[in-house]
Amino acid sequence: MMYGRYTQELGVYAKEEAARLRESGQRRSVSDRSRTLDLLEYDKGRCAKCRRSGYPYVLEAPAQDFISVCTVRCQKFLISRVGEDWIFLILLGLLMALVSWVVDFCIAICLQAQKWMYGGLDSNVFLQYLAWVTYPVVLITFSAGFTQILAPQAVGSGIPEMKTILRGVVLKEYLTFKTFVAKVIGLTCALGSGMPLGKEGPFVHIASLCAALLSKFMSLFGGIYENESRNIEMLAAACAVGVGCCFAAPIGGVLFSIEVTSTFFAVRNYWRGFFAATFSAFIFRVLAVWNRDEETITALFKTRFRLDFPFDLQELPAFAVIGIASGFGGALFVYLNRLIVQFMRKQKVINKFLMKKRLLYPALVTLVLSTLTFPPGFGQFMAGKLTQKEALVTLLDNRTWAKQGIAEEFDYIGNAQAWRHPQVNVFVTLVLFIVMKFWMSALAITIPVPSGAFMPVFVIGAAFGRLVGESMAAWFPDGINTDGTIYPIVPGGYAVVGAAALSGAVTHTVSTAVIVFELTGQISHILPVMIAVILANAVAQSLQPSLYDSIIRIKKLPYLPELGWGHHEKYNIRVEDIMVRDVRYITLNCCYRDLHNVLLTGQLKTLALVESAESMILLGSIERAQLQSLLSQQLGRARRLQYIRERAVEEKKRLSIVLDPASDDNGSQRTSQEVRFQISTEESSFSPTRPVPHKPLKPALKRPSVVERPTELPTSPHDHSGIALKNLFCSSPDTEALEDDGDVEDDMTIREIAEWEERQLDEQVNFNNCKIDPAPFQLVERTSLHKTHTIFSLLGLDHAYVTSIGRLIGVVSLKELRKAIEGSVTVKGVKVRPPLASFRDSGTSSSENETTELHKLWDRHKSMSLPRESTPSESEEKSQ
Amino acid sequence: MMYGRYTQELGVYAKEEAARLRESGQRRSVSDRSRTLDLLEYDKGRCAKCRRSGYPYVLEAPAQDFISVCTVRCQKFLISRVGEDWIFLILLGLLMALVSWVVDFCIAICLQAQKWMYGGLDSNVFLQYLAWVTYPVVLITFSAGFTQILAPQAVGSGIPEMKTILRGVVLKEYLTFKTFVAKVIGLTCALGSGMPLGKEGPFVHIASLCAALLSKFMSLFGGIYENESRNIEMLAAACAVGVGCCFAAPIGGVLFSIEVTSTFFAVRNYWRGFFAATFSAFIFRVLAVWNRDEETITALFKTRFRLDFPFDLQELPAFAVIGIASGFGGALFVYLNRLIVQFMRKQKVINKFLMKKRLLYPALVTLVLSTLTFPPGFGQFMAGKLTQKEALVTLLDNRTWAKQGIAEEFDYIGNAQAWRHPQVNVFVTLVLFIVMKFWMSALAITIPVPSGAFMPVFVIGAAFGRLVGESMAAWFPDGINTDGTIYPIVPGGYAVVGAAALSGAVTHTVSTAVIVFELTGQISHILPVMIAVILANAVAQSLQPSLYDSIIRIKKLPYLPELGWGHHEKYNIRVEDIMVRDVRYITLNCCYRDLHNVLLTGQLKTLALVESAESMILLGSIERAQLQSLLSQQLGRARRLQYIRERAVEEKKRLSIVLDPASDDNGSQRTSQEVRFQISTEESSFSPTRPVPHKPLKPALKRPSVVERPTELPTSPHDHSGIALKNLFCSSPDTEALEDDGDVEDDMTIREIAEWEERQLDEQVNFNNCKIDPAPFQLVERTSLHKTHTIFSLLGLDHAYVTSIGRLIGVVSLKELRKAIEGSVTVKGVKVRPPLASFRDSGTSSSENETTELHKLWDRHKSMSLPRESTPSESEEKSQ
Repeated sequence: MMYGRYTQELGVYAKEEAARLRESGQRRSVSDRSRTLDLLEYDKGRCAKCRRSGYPYVLEAPAQDFISVCTVRCQKFLISRVGEDWIFLILLGLLMALVSWVVDFCIAICLQAQKWMYGGLDSNVFLQYLAWVTYPVVLITFSAGFTQILAPQAVGSGIPEMKTILRGVVLKEYLTFKTFVAKVIGLTCALGSGMPLGKEGPFVHIASLCAALLSKFMSLFGGIYENESRNIEMLAAACAVGVGCCFAAPIGGVLFSIEVTSTFFAVRNYWRGFFAATFSAFIFRVLAVWNRDEETITALFKTRFRLDFPFDLQELPAFAVIGIASGFGGALFVYLNRLIVQFMRKQKVINKFLMKKRLLYPALVTLVLSTLTFPPGFGQFMAGKLTQKEALVTLLDNRTWAKQGIAEEFDYIGNAQAWRHPQVNVFVTLVLFIVMKFWMSALAITIPVPSGAFMPVFVIGAAFGRLVGESMAAWFPDGINTDGTIYPIVPGGYAVVGAAALSGAVTHTVSTAVIVFELTGQISHILPVMIAVILANAVAQSLQPSLYDSIIRIKKLPYLPELGWGHHEKYNIRVEDIMVRDVRYITLNCCYRDLHNVLLTGQLKTLALVESAESMILLGSIERAQLQSLLSQQLGRARRLQYIRERAVEEKKRLSIVLDPASDDNGSQRTSQEVRFQISTEESSFSPTRPVPHKPLKPALKRPSVVERPTELPTSPHDHSGIALKNLFCSSPDTEALEDDGDVEDDMTIREIAEWEERQLDEQVNFNNCKIDPAPFQLVERTSLHKTHTIFSLLGLDHAYVTSIGRLIGVVSLKELRKAIEGSVTVKGVKVRPPLASFRDSGTSSSENETTELHKLWDRHKSMSLPRESTPSESEEKSQ
Repeated sequence: MMYGRYTQELGVYAKEEAARLRESGQRRSVSDRSRTLDLLEYDKGRCAKCRRSGYPYVLEAPAQDFISVCTVRCQKFLISRVGEDWIFLILLGLLMALVSWVVDFCIAICLQAQKWMYGGLDSNVFLQYLAWVTYPVVLITFSAGFTQILAPQAVGSGIPEMKTILRGVVLKEYLTFKTFVAKVIGLTCALGSGMPLGKEGPFVHIASLCAALLSKFMSLFGGIYENESRNIEMLAAACAVGVGCCFAAPIGGVLFSIEVTSTFFAVRNYWRGFFAATFSAFIFRVLAVWNRDEETITALFKTRFRLDFPFDLQELPAFAVIGIASGFGGALFVYLNRLIVQFMRKQKVINKFLMKKRLLYPALVTLVLSTLTFPPGFGQFMAGKLTQKEALVTLLDNRTWAKQGIAEEFDYIGNAQAWRHPQVNVFVTLVLFIVMKFWMSALAITIPVPSGAFMPVFVIGAAFGRLVGESMAAWFPDGINTDGTIYPIVPGGYAVVGAAALSGAVTHTVSTAVIVFELTGQISHILPVMIAVILANAVAQSLQPSLYDSIIRIKKLPYLPELGWGHHEKYNIRVEDIMVRDVRYITLNCCYRDLHNVLLTGQLKTLALVESAESMILLGSIERAQLQSLLSQQLGRARRLQYIRERAVEEKKRLSIVLDPASDDNGSQRTSQEVRFQISTEESSFSPTRPVPHKPLKPALKRPSVVERPTELPTSPHDHSGIALKNLFCSSPDTEALEDDGDVEDDMTIREIAEWEERQLDEQVNFNNCKIDPAPFQLVERTSLHKTHTIFSLLGLDHAYVTSIGRLIGVVSLKELRKAIEGSVTVKGVKVRPPLASFRDSGTSSSENETTELHKLWDRHKSMSLPRESTPSESEEKSQ
């Protein structure tokens, strides 16, 4: 399906250009450059001049015109450069760096304001509490309300949606200016509230929004920006920029975005990501330098661990333990998050109440969370007064907090003091922090505001690492090394390892290791970090899907699950085991009635076109919409009126035959042939580039009373089916057709119409003006599941036909593939399941429901509004 | 083509297994595990027992048997674990770490021995010179001779070949044990000689060899190792391991190997690379710790730049200059290398002489290079006495060499002293070092020994960076910062940037940046490094192909060039502009004569099968070899003998009819039908899984006198064509067939045979027992070049048919695609060329030659020996 399609405009344009270029002959070097320019919108006014100056060697223009020609050429040259990738990437990087910096700046101001309020009111604890709690509640509520009103698509992380978009699905509403504004402002408010939320996921989305809008803007200057595959490539680069400018981590950004959003990555796009992310990270940090925050460009969370002996070999088991524990922790986090969402959905009473008062849920959650962190209250046991950033800085600190287990000796300065409590050990503080933050973060990211989960998880991981590190330091006060020199243990290193491991486990990525190096500016702990991250991934991936995949499932976005860590069964399952053998097809010589029946019974987006029912040779596939328009054309009022006109002409002729017997009866035959021919040329110019008008469905959908009818149809197909069909599929004929054919009167009775339609239905379908995908993807019945998965994800397929020497024998769609991969398919009586799938499945009880929904969701050509919490009726239906 | 194919053995095996499993019903949990085990070779002896214990719930065995059953099960379970990916990856990592460490160790010993010899003879300069020169000459000559004799495939870097293999081409000779031995020993000797050669490229090859051999070894235990796509995945991981354990740089290794070997990368393979490379790097460094070389695991070339102020913002232009200059330098290096190779090939006299004495060239080059580096001679001006590693360590040094331009103040200690010369400035030494090493490295990597170019280029880049850094330090003795605090410039940082930039430019990779961080253990210079690497890549990629692509072209390996940095034309070229319209095809109802003619005229590997010449509906594609075997079966002696037998039976019957007139003449008809049926069932069991025997070509090739004939055929097709054909295509019938059909006498005369063959040729082809690829890849005529390139590289296609609603209208092969991308195709009269292609083309004058050769080279199914210098006649032919 994918390869039969092409970007319409560009194709036509290129053809025209090619024809023009051929004329202009050897004047190629110039025309090549000017080619992209001739559609410049801003040139519209001075079109005549440009057209001449585009071929400057034709210097029939007078000499004084020469200078103006030159300037126009220069201008054109400069503008043509706008089409270059690197200009786009630089602009994107610059823009995102500015956005990131401004957002950071605003967040910092918000947080300072809270601190200032809290500090100023220290005379009265109740007032302090009120200030501490009200501030975030207001901000979060505003954020939730604002995004809800402006663009509900801006809610959440955005990475799951980007993954879906890069998979080839068009979610147009997700890349609009409205969404951009909602996301940026909503995110700033949400993070300014001090809730455990992250900015990294939303930044991936914001960067993609930026890229999409920039593309749209730049397309005013050059045609290349209208190319679809180029835009997808640019979106992939934008994702890298998003992470890159968020953490000032260009390499980690590129890798993380690849891991999180792509299944197959084109290495030729690599440099785009690196280029844009580096530039963005550079500008982001330069802004900090110019703002006198920093002396020069350094890492965001700089650490100062010793370089010559970062860790002992014998500490490696401790790092491995961190990795494995983080793996379990990460899986638990994803599970917990999904559990909360599903709990909220299932509780009908709560659900209904919350749906009515949409801002109540965010406000309630914020209230609970900020109450718990209130520093004079429970917050004192979990460093509640520290912001996320401050907490991370203290956790990555160079010094050891618990020297020989005696917390008192610890030299607390600045923010690190928050971790000390007069009564309680620093270990207890850390444990409480980890436990509380864990569920608080899992809860917080369910609030419908723009927010990510990376940073909270990162901080929890750092705290866990710190805990292990401090324990190790307490256990081995003089270090482990036995060679004489004392190298004390560095708990900060453990924190780094823990942060990378837990965030890696939650997101199922390895590149968090690189992000950690770039964030801390030190790479000395590379081996422990890598070991921990890999172990965490191994554990987490075998227990739960990644957080983003989990959200994809929750939001019921169309997706294809990954093949797991070496499930061998995949190599032994064949397409023939999973394919649907009962394929719905139409034949080349079918009549409209067959079309009608096929359309009524099936729900598939595309239908196979075979040569004949006997040969079953696959010729191509046709979209449902195409068939509907074919049918509507055949039964449309326009055609019927023509028929009436024709009949009138015939009757006239018959009269004239009576008057003039010389004219033989060939006349009427010729007329009907002519008319037939006229129709086919009128509606199809025989060029496949012209889009067939898509009007049909819209007006029908506007009138719900008409839409109801087709369900009655199969019971009485011979009654008014034609009329009903017409009403279903046609562009409301009563209003449109009458304008053109005012000369003819529709004097047919309903009975006549029905008869006429019956006759029409028996005619053979004329596929001439139908857009057929002539090369749908084909598989062989013995292709392995592994290969099928590869092909589907490589090419972003929705379905593939299974053929045997040209004969269509089956079809495989994403649905079957998903079932097969998730292990619920039975291969010849044997149930194939990945070993740990049982645990995973328990969380996704609605999987059967989802898969049937897939084809409805999977719509490349129209913008799609996703089922979300915001549409109560729909989400309720699905959760049951 | 790719999707019609499947691994034969596994397919059949899986089917049989599935049948068995169905029988065994619900006893799945065990049988699933034991499934892969039943083919265990080691179990062969105790087959009966295993078969019983495979289904342990059937406990009809006596109780004392139970224990043995249990142990067998445990054993089986353990062995089944061998099939897990991670076991394989750990083994691979371990093996490669050991190999890397041992090779390093041996190289160190070799280099020490040379130093010791050189140092011991310091009384006599001539003896010293003799020792200095003889030692590398002997080692290189031995290395060249050894690899030449054992496995010529081991010569060179190996990355170009791996790129080709991962692209889907089977170069079987490249992954044998012989090659492994030759590569390891050859590499050790070559690097031990002290020539400017690298170990990184060969290590990619060695790791792949390891993986392939390990796969083969492990396939003794489990069937999964026979899966082709899995092996390709493992090879990709192995490439990462190769770089990872060479530099102890797991992340950089993975990224570098992806950039260098892949076009599209499956993110699901990502973890494999990381896992294996991390483990390998870990073991590699642990070995150093255990060997007491290091105290703990740290970076290979540890630097100690200051952390708090690594560089000033105003130094960035200098870093950018390094990047741009490195870009030009890298392109020049690639160009120079190709120039040398082409010069050597073109000079017939030299070429012939060198071909006779193959070891002379390596010896001569080594002699020249080592003479130039002789420390008391010219070597004193270019730090000639330092090994590559020592040079790198000194170049990355923390201190500034040229304080305020006065070289005398410089505190030279240890190896760094080599850079000082009493008469000459340190700047002159550096410039000389860069210039000399530049051409020396370009020359050295043309020596036919296993060697890479990464490390030499890396060192040159470091020297260049150092030069710029020292200049900066001399220019700004007190640093650039104006804020009061003096932060002197760190020339070592510049060296790091230069190293990354130049190696990035030569290899066209961005990940050298990551490798640099991992090698030095510091990430503080991340932004300068990234900026320089990206600029270097931008410049180098627009001027020259990467070194590996250049070698691919030189070696004439089948490849597909990359789409460059944003050439917009790619989006406007359509498949219809580049496709070949004159497709060679066979029809479903063709006779053997058509087959014969098609085979004689065309050279394509596969032929399209269409329904009929009128409909042109594409049904599939058939390999040439399949058609040849079809033809040979039709005209084969076996069939002819059958015909004779048949004739004899008929004659007998005729006689019997004369005797018994009751039997009607239907008899003879039925017999012939029966025989026909018999043939088709005898030779095809109607299962497409059975491979059609491939014997034909071999015996024919053994008798060159027979092979000569077909060229005469077209002149007199009616003479002995059949017999000649038979001789060409058939498995020598005189010896084989006679054994089976000893009962029949071949009494036909040549004339009779010719007549019989003529009759046979007129028969319709029976495609029943022919392996047809039922779903060859199809494109639409309007698919853009960009998309076509993507599909070809994604799926590793060789060719794709262009269809229009099922009708075959053209074919696109790699050849056309390459032409289109390299800009030599004319789209409707307009020559489309990338802007800087002219410079690039000048280096590849033989490109026309190459492309015609492509289809011969492109052979997936047979092992392939590549045209190399070692086969004088061939390489001579091609270079002309």
